[in-house]
Amino acid sequence: MKIFKNIKPIHDELGALKKNGAIIGFVPTMGFLHKGHTSLIQRSVKECDITAVSIFVNPIQFGKGEDFDSYPRNAQRDYSIIEETGAEYVFVPNTEEIYGEDFKTYVSVKGSGNIMCGKYRPGHFDGVCTVVLKLFNIINPDIAYFGLKDFQQFFIIKKMTEDLNVYVKIQQCPIVREEDGLAMSSRNRYLSGEERKNAVILYRTLKAAEEMVKGKSISLRQIKKVSLDTLGKNPYVKSIDYFDFRDPGTLEEIKNLKTYFKLKSRNKILIAAAIYIGSTRLIDNVVI
Amino acid sequence: MKIFKNIKPIHDELGALKKNGAIIGFVPTMGFLHKGHTSLIQRSVKECDITAVSIFVNPIQFGKGEDFDSYPRNAQRDYSIIEETGAEYVFVPNTEEIYGEDFKTYVSVKGSGNIMCGKYRPGHFDGVCTVVLKLFNIINPDIAYFGLKDFQQFFIIKKMTEDLNVYVKIQQCPIVREEDGLAMSSRNRYLSGEERKNAVILYRTLKAAEEMVKGKSISLRQIKKVSLDTLGKNPYVKSIDYFDFRDPGTLEEIKNLKTYFKLKSRNKILIAAAIYIGSTRLIDNVVI
Repeated sequence: MKIFKNIKPIHDELGALKKNGAIIGFVPTMGFLHKGHTSLIQRSVKECDITAVSIFVNPIQFGKGEDFDSYPRNAQRDYSIIEETGAEYVFVPNTEEIYGEDFKTYVSVKGSGNIMCGKYRPGHFDGVCTVVLKLFNIINPDIAYFGLKDFQQFFIIKKMTEDLNVYVKIQQCPIVREEDGLAMSSRNRYLSGEERKNAVILYRTLKAAEEMVKGKSISLRQIKKVSLDTLGKNPYVKSIDYFDFRDPGTLEEIKNLKTYFKLKSRNKILIAAAIYIGSTRLIDNVVI
Repeated sequence: MKIFKNIKPIHDELGALKKNGAIIGFVPTMGFLHKGHTSLIQRSVKECDITAVSIFVNPIQFGKGEDFDSYPRNAQRDYSIIEETGAEYVFVPNTEEIYGEDFKTYVSVKGSGNIMCGKYRPGHFDGVCTVVLKLFNIINPDIAYFGLKDFQQFFIIKKMTEDLNVYVKIQQCPIVREEDGLAMSSRNRYLSGEERKNAVILYRTLKAAEEMVKGKSISLRQIKKVSLDTLGKNPYVKSIDYFDFRDPGTLEEIKNLKTYFKLKSRNKILIAAAIYIGSTRLIDNVVI
């Protein structure tokens, strides 16, 4: 496994491999890897000739007062995990290498970047799109792998690549969960013992909402009310950013199921939520 | 010479040539070609193995009330001109092919996109950056050629490629002028006979300002005042958007020459202006 800190050497080396016909798989991460990440890397190792993993805690996707400084980092632990998966390349640039002195260019997906998480984290998805496009240009992968816990991120990056004619296949991968159902996330490590036990309320409420939707006996408005009540009653849930029913193909909000299903080719429903357990922001979703 | 209207076939064909080692040169244009364009194409033909020229009047770089609808178009004439230069590929997509139904992604260079022409044409450079990045991804050139009449455009595109790690060399090329000095522009054809004769006032005023700067006897503020007076006195000059002295390396405004020259490695001065001759907006510049 080769570790690169600078742009030019890894760009040149992967470019030469690609020219010789290698299919390059890429897994961009912010490090502090968990089983969600390893599932992406393993899939890339299985499907591609060469797999590159990046580790970069991207400052421009964090807002003021967010957890950029405290975001967990442990490069040595990450290297061991990546080595075990069989990935060949690791790219771990520092902020200076990625943004230099006078960085000025931003990529923005209008509309879908300002709803859901984007509404509560203004500029977040511009930061994500900008760094992902830069990483794509540096690594030049054929396929890039993204986990569906960050459903909106997957959606927006896919839209960006389509709109900008970026020739990278954006592969979605299923959410990996702890035994009790909590979605794997580097931020779970912020949770205290009691918070951790209670954090599963997010997934349980999403699954309960899923059952209610399938049951078809009550309206989405009622299901949302019941879900918000369930979350609100848990003393560890400090606040709820959103609990939304959306079209996974467009991220448009679904107000009424009957009207929605009448739309051509609409048959899936995304239920996505973001809540705070103590001071830790958690997101999760289910697609029906 | 091959003409392509669709993205995928030209992307695939040029991609295959590039994989076999061909150096691809690219000249993006809005068509209605003049000798400024042909100088770019000829340079690419000379320097590269394969030259591709795009013709696309990009709607998203025009503001409301600007000349998108009336912008001169003549594809057949353009094809003959390109054929004569020896370029091998022409890409002439329609708006639907480039932007589809639900285009949402924009690229923006903060700061330098909002001054000079950007101040008077809000969103213009976002439109330019977005389409140029798309065209770069479609054509995948090694070198792209831009004329310096649009100095700010050249500057911003170069900055965008550096910031986003786009591996395309941005080659600047000198302004091509009519015999009297008027910079070649597709928009010159809007000018009536008398307007055309008077349009040279722009270049003459820039050159006079250049001489005054070289003479070092009066301040930039005084030179600007004299220049604005000269332009203002011409009855065909309807209005002046700007007449600026700027650092060609940063586009920062130069207020005082002595202070400016004291800055490390600053030895060039850009004098750039935009004026209306009748209802036609003309831009030009000189670099000292």
